[in-house]
Amino acid sequence: MIRPDEQTADQNPDLPLVKLWGGRFDEPTDAFVEAFTASIGFDQRLYREDIAGSIAHARMLAKVGVLKTEECDKIVQGLNAILLDIERGDFAWVVAYEDVHMNIEARLIDRIGDVGKKLHTGRSRNDQVATDVRLHLRGAIDRILAELTRLRSGLVDLAEREADTVMPGFTHLQVAQPVSFGHHLLAWYEMLTRDADRLVDVRRRVNVLPLGSAALAGTSYPLDRAYVAEQLGFDGVSRNSLDAVSDRDFVIEFLSAASLAMMHLSRMSEELILWTSAQFGFIDLPDRFCTGSSIMPQKKNPDVPELVRGKTGRVYGDLFALLTLMKGQPLAYNKDNQEDKEPLFDAIDTLLGSLRAFADMIPALQPNRDRMRAAARQGFSTATDLADYLVRQGVPFRDAHEIVGRAVRHAQNAGCDLADLPLDVLQGFSAKIGEEVFAVLTLEGSMAARDIEGGTAPAQVRRQAAAARAALAEQGA
Amino acid sequence: MIRPDEQTADQNPDLPLVKLWGGRFDEPTDAFVEAFTASIGFDQRLYREDIAGSIAHARMLAKVGVLKTEECDKIVQGLNAILLDIERGDFAWVVAYEDVHMNIEARLIDRIGDVGKKLHTGRSRNDQVATDVRLHLRGAIDRILAELTRLRSGLVDLAEREADTVMPGFTHLQVAQPVSFGHHLLAWYEMLTRDADRLVDVRRRVNVLPLGSAALAGTSYPLDRAYVAEQLGFDGVSRNSLDAVSDRDFVIEFLSAASLAMMHLSRMSEELILWTSAQFGFIDLPDRFCTGSSIMPQKKNPDVPELVRGKTGRVYGDLFALLTLMKGQPLAYNKDNQEDKEPLFDAIDTLLGSLRAFADMIPALQPNRDRMRAAARQGFSTATDLADYLVRQGVPFRDAHEIVGRAVRHAQNAGCDLADLPLDVLQGFSAKIGEEVFAVLTLEGSMAARDIEGGTAPAQVRRQAAAARAALAEQGA
Amino acid sequence: MIRPDEQTADQNPDLPLVKLWGGRFDEPTDAFVEAFTASIGFDQRLYREDIAGSIAHARMLAKVGVLKTEECDKIVQGLNAILLDIERGDFAWVVAYEDVHMNIEARLIDRIGDVGKKLHTGRSRNDQVATDVRLHLRGAIDRILAELTRLRSGLVDLAEREADTVMPGFTHLQVAQPVSFGHHLLAWYEMLTRDADRLVDVRRRVNVLPLGSAALAGTSYPLDRAYVAEQLGFDGVSRNSLDAVSDRDFVIEFLSAASLAMMHLSRMSEELILWTSAQFGFIDLPDRFCTGSSIMPQKKNPDVPELVRGKTGRVYGDLFALLTLMKGQPLAYNKDNQEDKEPLFDAIDTLLGSLRAFADMIPALQPNRDRMRAAARQGFSTATDLADYLVRQGVPFRDAHEIVGRAVRHAQNAGCDLADLPLDVLQGFSAKIGEEVFAVLTLEGSMAARDIEGGTAPAQVRRQAAAARAALAEQGA
Amino acid sequence: MIRPDEQTADQNPDLPLVKLWGGRFDEPTDAFVEAFTASIGFDQRLYREDIAGSIAHARMLAKVGVLKTEECDKIVQGLNAILLDIERGDFAWVVAYEDVHMNIEARLIDRIGDVGKKLHTGRSRNDQVATDVRLHLRGAIDRILAELTRLRSGLVDLAEREADTVMPGFTHLQVAQPVSFGHHLLAWYEMLTRDADRLVDVRRRVNVLPLGSAALAGTSYPLDRAYVAEQLGFDGVSRNSLDAVSDRDFVIEFLSAASLAMMHLSRMSEELILWTSAQFGFIDLPDRFCTGSSIMPQKKNPDVPELVRGKTGRVYGDLFALLTLMKGQPLAYNKDNQEDKEPLFDAIDTLLGSLRAFADMIPALQPNRDRMRAAARQGFSTATDLADYLVRQGVPFRDAHEIVGRAVRHAQNAGCDLADLPLDVLQGFSAKIGEEVFAVLTLEGSMAARDIEGGTAPAQVRRQAAAARAALAEQGA
Repeated sequence: MIRPDEQTADQNPDLPLVKLWGGRFDEPTDAFVEAFTASIGFDQRLYREDIAGSIAHARMLAKVGVLKTEECDKIVQGLNAILLDIERGDFAWVVAYEDVHMNIEARLIDRIGDVGKKLHTGRSRNDQVATDVRLHLRGAIDRILAELTRLRSGLVDLAEREADTVMPGFTHLQVAQPVSFGHHLLAWYEMLTRDADRLVDVRRRVNVLPLGSAALAGTSYPLDRAYVAEQLGFDGVSRNSLDAVSDRDFVIEFLSAASLAMMHLSRMSEELILWTSAQFGFIDLPDRFCTGSSIMPQKKNPDVPELVRGKTGRVYGDLFALLTLMKGQPLAYNKDNQEDKEPLFDAIDTLLGSLRAFADMIPALQPNRDRMRAAARQGFSTATDLADYLVRQGVPFRDAHEIVGRAVRHAQNAGCDLADLPLDVLQGFSAKIGEEVFAVLTLEGSMAARDIEGGTAPAQVRRQAAAARAALAEQGA
Repeated sequence: MIRPDEQTADQNPDLPLVKLWGGRFDEPTDAFVEAFTASIGFDQRLYREDIAGSIAHARMLAKVGVLKTEECDKIVQGLNAILLDIERGDFAWVVAYEDVHMNIEARLIDRIGDVGKKLHTGRSRNDQVATDVRLHLRGAIDRILAELTRLRSGLVDLAEREADTVMPGFTHLQVAQPVSFGHHLLAWYEMLTRDADRLVDVRRRVNVLPLGSAALAGTSYPLDRAYVAEQLGFDGVSRNSLDAVSDRDFVIEFLSAASLAMMHLSRMSEELILWTSAQFGFIDLPDRFCTGSSIMPQKKNPDVPELVRGKTGRVYGDLFALLTLMKGQPLAYNKDNQEDKEPLFDAIDTLLGSLRAFADMIPALQPNRDRMRAAARQGFSTATDLADYLVRQGVPFRDAHEIVGRAVRHAQNAGCDLADLPLDVLQGFSAKIGEEVFAVLTLEGSMAARDIEGGTAPAQVRRQAAAARAALAEQGA
Repeated sequence: MIRPDEQTADQNPDLPLVKLWGGRFDEPTDAFVEAFTASIGFDQRLYREDIAGSIAHARMLAKVGVLKTEECDKIVQGLNAILLDIERGDFAWVVAYEDVHMNIEARLIDRIGDVGKKLHTGRSRNDQVATDVRLHLRGAIDRILAELTRLRSGLVDLAEREADTVMPGFTHLQVAQPVSFGHHLLAWYEMLTRDADRLVDVRRRVNVLPLGSAALAGTSYPLDRAYVAEQLGFDGVSRNSLDAVSDRDFVIEFLSAASLAMMHLSRMSEELILWTSAQFGFIDLPDRFCTGSSIMPQKKNPDVPELVRGKTGRVYGDLFALLTLMKGQPLAYNKDNQEDKEPLFDAIDTLLGSLRAFADMIPALQPNRDRMRAAARQGFSTATDLADYLVRQGVPFRDAHEIVGRAVRHAQNAGCDLADLPLDVLQGFSAKIGEEVFAVLTLEGSMAARDIEGGTAPAQVRRQAAAARAALAEQGA
Repeated sequence: MIRPDEQTADQNPDLPLVKLWGGRFDEPTDAFVEAFTASIGFDQRLYREDIAGSIAHARMLAKVGVLKTEECDKIVQGLNAILLDIERGDFAWVVAYEDVHMNIEARLIDRIGDVGKKLHTGRSRNDQVATDVRLHLRGAIDRILAELTRLRSGLVDLAEREADTVMPGFTHLQVAQPVSFGHHLLAWYEMLTRDADRLVDVRRRVNVLPLGSAALAGTSYPLDRAYVAEQLGFDGVSRNSLDAVSDRDFVIEFLSAASLAMMHLSRMSEELILWTSAQFGFIDLPDRFCTGSSIMPQKKNPDVPELVRGKTGRVYGDLFALLTLMKGQPLAYNKDNQEDKEPLFDAIDTLLGSLRAFADMIPALQPNRDRMRAAARQGFSTATDLADYLVRQGVPFRDAHEIVGRAVRHAQNAGCDLADLPLDVLQGFSAKIGEEVFAVLTLEGSMAARDIEGGTAPAQVRRQAAAARAALAEQGA
């Protein structure tokens, strides 16, 4: 909202108090209303895109003859100078000018005089802000994709290294079957790969130029929209002006994709937190990714995954803010839409920060292979292998399942694993069991047997990792 | 949840009480817990997909030699007979069998004997249900795309017919500029076209076969996953078994796309409701799409758009339910995931029903062209045209804006439109105004002037409509 | 939505096709629209409340002279007969009559003739449905409060029994300090007590009679609203008719309270799932609350807590559906509001079912005290006690914290607990450490020392449990 | 997240790099992780509450003998000096100190030396931050209640003034019955009154002291919790330490109440936007609450209600962020909880700002009584009165409804209102209609007839307004 470091018009009597739209008004805006409705507190973040868009617009206006070349040059130089001012921190954002567009335009007029008043020809803040936000989001998606690639590469490296490491696979958080730790890491890789795929689809729908739609109806100036699109790297131009100024689908689509990505990071976080607990003890996180307690001197807390898990709700909230915002709005632009920016920026920052933290942390995690292996030996994790063995001896699967269930109950009462039962006891459950059953009941035997596409056999894990590496290479990672 | 028409085991003493997984258990499931955890009340909807998946699985098991041909034939015949039973309403769903998979498998064993116990070889309910849901959703997306096409076609027809109809374009629900009613309808078309695009992307990620992942780790049987995929029309197979059984991204992605589509329908609804109000009076809806009041005899209410607007929240809620569901879940399958189905089914039904209602209703709406035109004449809708005119006379845009703002204030106090001010009064605001200004200030002049790609000029609207028609034709509509 | 067991008018030619509001309409409702907009598929659930409300309304109409006594009697008898029909399953709900109100009214007229047409005098479906939903929700809250009481009582009993049981208290899922298992259970009790408090507040705002508001403006009949309220057990009557027919705050408030309650159950579930894992092994759940796997014969899954955790999102989704529904609606009643019922019913059923399952299950959980105790001995859980000991010897807390941190690092490298370090080693970290430190470092010593209100000392736990029992008794549990 | 004006440790080499918890750690925190996990960027907002809480804690420590009086005095003076520094802007917040608590404590030690290290005795950041947030929220609720009272008072004044003003009451946005404009304003008053009631309930559950719970288990120091509560104005102390440090119900409950309040403001906004449209024209908003367009010189946009309607989604998003955050968290404190603050602060600021804007704006809105009255004459708004008239002549209500429906259809075809039909034409629909019917069909007659509690008769409106004024006075407004 309103920050103390922003000037309001009445604090700065040298500022021109006349709005850029004030001709029709009888009284000035109420001071609180001015601050309450201004967006400059958060949309100043768009200054680079706003200036780039204005430069492209000015050049196009010159190309089609609405501006003279020297007018265009003056405007472009003025805008470039303003860009430098802002980056140097030498620009006073003024609440009375409402937003980033008006602040920059007012400064331009101040700097280069009346020719600056020609820049806004043939456009409106409605199509201008849509252009700025699309440019900004496009850049953010590219940065997010780069972090995703870095994290996915780290996972593939680790997965390859840990292809032979046995851990218990869980369903219902109960030990289910032995799996390769590398296989588990590649499950994470798959989730993140879908995120990247989705973001590529979203980017395609983001990268469309709305400028030229003006306030809502298009414009009577002979604008060359394709030339603007070309200068700014857009793939094409919007097809309907009413839609173009009121559409925020691209923001919502991004927030949906970001919510899914955060959901994936929250699942990874949940597992990292479980695995670093004393009870699991499957991995260690280096001290530099953890923090301590102000009261308990022994504590070393997995702050990064906890915080990322917590930040998930924040991005979900951003998504629902936007879905609610757009619900039931009549066309075309309404002031409600100003509320699209803060949730978008928040989601970008949250996802980028979380990915960066994970991309740094994942390669540094240290597996405790002994603890994993010991845990896999608990919980009768090879019971399915025994059932499958019986099926190969001709027992229908459902009967085999029943037989093994009884054997498990027996072993549990005896306080031992299936592999610890003597052969004659096992044969008491089914006469079809022979000596060779004990090979089937080993962790390595179980794991290696699942040698099917997508299965946990180390050979499969290496094949999946190699394919992943190739896919990343193709994306230029 | 539990419906009164479902049988529970203790109501039907003839049912075999032994679960298909009971070997390891000491006591039967608590009756309330059995009903509380059963999914058969809602997942019976998946029976067609479940049977199709089982047939493909059985044929593949025969192909790779796990089943004999005659075993496979018996299973396939048994499943087809069960399909007929269900479609004839001659199948008693049993809560004690928990879900659609176990109900069908139990009936199969009952019908064809022990060979039926071999069907579940090499698979688990975890990969089975994921397969069923993906098949079901793929079919639903195809039906939704068909309704979207029907609605979009109706919009294009109407838009073409109304290309020359003038209505006020609004921003902030204030009259902004005259626009073509056809242009407005094509804005709706654009929204829905993005929905269709998105659903095509979602379908691509839905159409991947998880079967072969078994419980979580793959299977030791030499399954031919590609053959199953081919039989069921999947584009490919999942690459990681842990991911495949725990992934619900495809449901969430669909719910996100459905939420956006409902949001668009809610915006259209809001406008339809406004337009049928006595105050706007822009359109009439035929009586057959409206209902009356139990107390006020004169009422004719736009129920369909109101209800669709109301249903938007429902689909948002479904999306949020799934995002919450998956947040922080460790791998692989957890019972939580059973809760994915009801929100998904609800969103499918809601979106399909809403689209169908709109596709029926939109072609039948009757525009009141006189009311629209009269409304466009209010609110100084051609003020921007006057400013643009001044720019063409050499006035910088910002100054032109200020001049017109003062003229508007004057006209408002005089109780008339800009076009009603005498030339000398207009010239009092700027000496650059000449006689020809009055042509600029007409509604038709204003509209026709916006002859830019995406603009509201009727010529543009016709061009856009023709392009839309071509795009629909290409999609086979 | 539309269910196959509902009759539509065109399926049943004997039904009167004329709507109860049709006088002003030129054409009948479209068949799909009729089904799409009908609510009878879900609002038939309100039949008891609808009939009770109608009886109270009829009696009041007789009291104020709008109905004659014999007319009233006929109506009341007719309604009671209909109630019996419905409860016997002998009532055909008709889609063409839209909703529960019209279905019952049409049947009443059919049964008792023209006098039935007088029942709707002075009311509208707008105030009628609001009354029905409030009555229904009031009853649901009372049932929920009863289940909450049952669950809370179970927790208090268990807590008292386990007051002396030591378990590791966690922060960040890292072992923090030893706590009493009873103390942990009372933390759950506190959460659920707040839920009960909130529901009592909600009930107060639910229990207000809207009847008498008619369609939106009140009525010209001299209704005795207080008499209706008295008959139906309402605490008072609504104060503004426009508000009364459009208000759904009470539904949203309930959904908020239900979301919090489900959130609490999800936290309890998370812990139950952790505790039943092989890695924690803190508790066992009886077999009757668990289910098995279709493929892995050894599995015993904690389905109930998993499912309850999963159902949390569902109730959140219901809340979000309603918040979205009401956002931006103009007064007074809009058709959107029909969408309030299914989310409300779903949340009621979900919360009630989840509470019932927990109230059954919690008293049956079996703590593994040895596993808990062993886990509490890990992780340097008494490190804070050592720091506090040093403070008592005059070391500032921050310095004590630093000293203990170094001792922990040393013990960790030595592979032992703090209590296992020899005195001279401990004194190497601080000369202020004496022999008596070892008493401080025991689990029991640590726990008993926290003898402050709300602290984990067994004495405190017993005191808290006694207070809880007294509070429950006061509520009549 | 991380703001450029915050110092990080490596930017400021004079800062002590040792954390207040570092004894057990081998390597310093990663710089990015440090910034990513720090909360000082947003929790510095709690400095007043943090200092107040620390002062109360220190005084209590002195009271129970843990601190000497002079130690306590030194600490209190130090803290007061720091408060002054912060308010003067003379305090450098340091990211390396993570949060507001550690920043203030580090500065305290820096300022008063070793005695400062004793302040943290018997508490943890876990109970400290819960205390700070509760104090902050309590203050915010009080400010929100004050703005609510101001807005409600403004509504009552306006309602009383406009008790006799006729406007059309709407259902389904179709003209329904004539209502008093004052009655409509009091419907808004009722909504806001429920908001105030709810906030009072929330405040009760907020105002409980968690301090004394320490990290999670209570503390071994003999703290006097009641004395701390008394100093800080808390109504009582928490009853379970595990619950007290992990509970965020009070935040969620506030966000639920804030969501409802924003929903109400969004409904008021929707109506204000409709009413200021050219099509309705029911009210004018003063220029000072509106803004213009950068391109369309005639525009005067109702920015404040649009923005408030848009901000609704933001607060909903905050609520869902917190509900998601807490879902499935095991006890006790987890780092996730750090994410509770930004959504809470955002919701406080948004609701306060929106209420303030409305409280300023509502008293200034100017009704256009002629436009309202003219609109009420449209749409057969007195049709229900005709039906009620017929009932009084002995026609059953359902038949009367049918008769009037036919009369409306006739009048509509004739292009006139019911009151414009000649008596003999009316009698053609029912012979029971007499001359006196025309009095019934006037707007004033219709309105005055609804003289029932909560009805729209001006007499009722005045009574309601007087009662509201009395209620506000009782609350000290």
